[in-house]
Amino acid sequence: MGRVTRNLPVLRIGPERTTRRSDSLAVEEPLEIRLNGESFLVTMRTPGDDIDLVHGLLASEGLIRGVQDVSLARYCAGAGPDGLNTYNVLDVSLAAGVAAPSAARRRQVVTTSACGICGTTSIDQVLQDAPYVLDPAVRVPSELIMAAPDLLRAHQKAFEKTGGVHAAGLLNLDGTMLCAREDVGRHNAVDKVIGWAMREKRLPLSRSILVVSSRASFELAQKAVLAGIPILAAVSAPSTLAVDLAIEAGLTLAGFVRGQTMNIYAHPERVVLAARESPEELPQSRLSG
Amino acid sequence: MGRVTRNLPVLRIGPERTTRRSDSLAVEEPLEIRLNGESFLVTMRTPGDDIDLVHGLLASEGLIRGVQDVSLARYCAGAGPDGLNTYNVLDVSLAAGVAAPSAARRRQVVTTSACGICGTTSIDQVLQDAPYVLDPAVRVPSELIMAAPDLLRAHQKAFEKTGGVHAAGLLNLDGTMLCAREDVGRHNAVDKVIGWAMREKRLPLSRSILVVSSRASFELAQKAVLAGIPILAAVSAPSTLAVDLAIEAGLTLAGFVRGQTMNIYAHPERVVLAARESPEELPQSRLSG
Repeated sequence: MGRVTRNLPVLRIGPERTTRRSDSLAVEEPLEIRLNGESFLVTMRTPGDDIDLVHGLLASEGLIRGVQDVSLARYCAGAGPDGLNTYNVLDVSLAAGVAAPSAARRRQVVTTSACGICGTTSIDQVLQDAPYVLDPAVRVPSELIMAAPDLLRAHQKAFEKTGGVHAAGLLNLDGTMLCAREDVGRHNAVDKVIGWAMREKRLPLSRSILVVSSRASFELAQKAVLAGIPILAAVSAPSTLAVDLAIEAGLTLAGFVRGQTMNIYAHPERVVLAARESPEELPQSRLSG
Repeated sequence: MGRVTRNLPVLRIGPERTTRRSDSLAVEEPLEIRLNGESFLVTMRTPGDDIDLVHGLLASEGLIRGVQDVSLARYCAGAGPDGLNTYNVLDVSLAAGVAAPSAARRRQVVTTSACGICGTTSIDQVLQDAPYVLDPAVRVPSELIMAAPDLLRAHQKAFEKTGGVHAAGLLNLDGTMLCAREDVGRHNAVDKVIGWAMREKRLPLSRSILVVSSRASFELAQKAVLAGIPILAAVSAPSTLAVDLAIEAGLTLAGFVRGQTMNIYAHPERVVLAARESPEELPQSRLSG
């Protein structure tokens, strides 16, 4: 299970008390696939069974029909800038006679000539693209964040009917829902609320909370950071890379936000605990160290 | 709510009886985004708030920073091949001075010069790519499909620890788990089991059931079809486009598969009902009509 899960420090806020503990998170890291020597795509995944992953992915894209269509699939042999192989780059060669994808079908996101793509590469890209600093002075009562999923659920008309859509909402710091959207894709729901805010000329969303009905992946944390949103609250678990990005970008990241409990994975200093929540356990900027 | 949900006929299999009824599903359709006249990407989404979606998406890609960076965003004005505008193609122009994405950053999947991309376009692409006919003679007891999520859960080690990963499993028709994988991305988990099977030279998987811990999107149904898998069982809801593809491709699609109940959305003829499940309600090839 080595790289599949990773333990990270977390601030657990409950109805009775707040505790610091270690929590096991699903590992998320980028995988770059190179086809016939050229970058084909970068996908976020949990490390492990990567050779299987690339075979299944190429089959789903209609590019290969069997293992005989792949002449080579192995981790890039060289090392990254720090001298280590990250095992996040796969070199794949198609067999003779198998058509390579057209240039238009390549979905390249990050390019590097080294073998060392890793979470840090993805985080650095976001920090480089981010136009705003997330406001470090924002303070929000813990109850307000914990109430966010219920507020969002009140706007989930399609979920009630279908059970098949995700939702995202933008909350004001006073708890007002500014905008809520539903979509079969959780990333689309987030894009719709942030796009709405942009068209309303409300960016940066420095006085807002983004609440999502799903887990918190790297991609969702990225969207919050690029829109200047200081707090992301997710109903379910975050990934390791979402937490790593949140720590670096100054994003307060809450997961498992449910009624009277939640976990804070990054930048708990924005969360103001109610008196009953052990005032001696005041959040600090960093959870560990 | 017009295009956000759609009613479809479903066979509801419960512990006491089996009934035909209408079920409300989340609509999933492709959206093609054209940037400065060239196809930029196609994404699956629930229709609605598409102008917001494209603004949010371009912001997340780091391509725009505010509404002033977009000079035009509107539905493609022409009609599709059948003379109707599908409202699934957006024309977007960046403002003067805003850098267009490099060719490498374009993520084009389907190209058409008309304005008429729709679910049928995506389905036709899959049927065209599919190397196998899904075996119409396969028959499986309903209990075996309903037991699949519990079998899968027994393999979800990382989920138990983190609550943050999806899982996919390949079941033999006798209920044996051939391969189960976990990943932060549900599409990756499916790619990993199908890629495993390909490397084991087990394709087409014409005597297998694919079980997923998540909802059933178009993308997951596509992966099953391309691997020759005749039955897809999802713990949660399917989208409309997953059902439409399943009907066209001959895939048996089960959703909300939980213990003693499940819904069959397409090709119920492969599902053999237990005696207690109203034998007079024998599944037919089509649920409606």
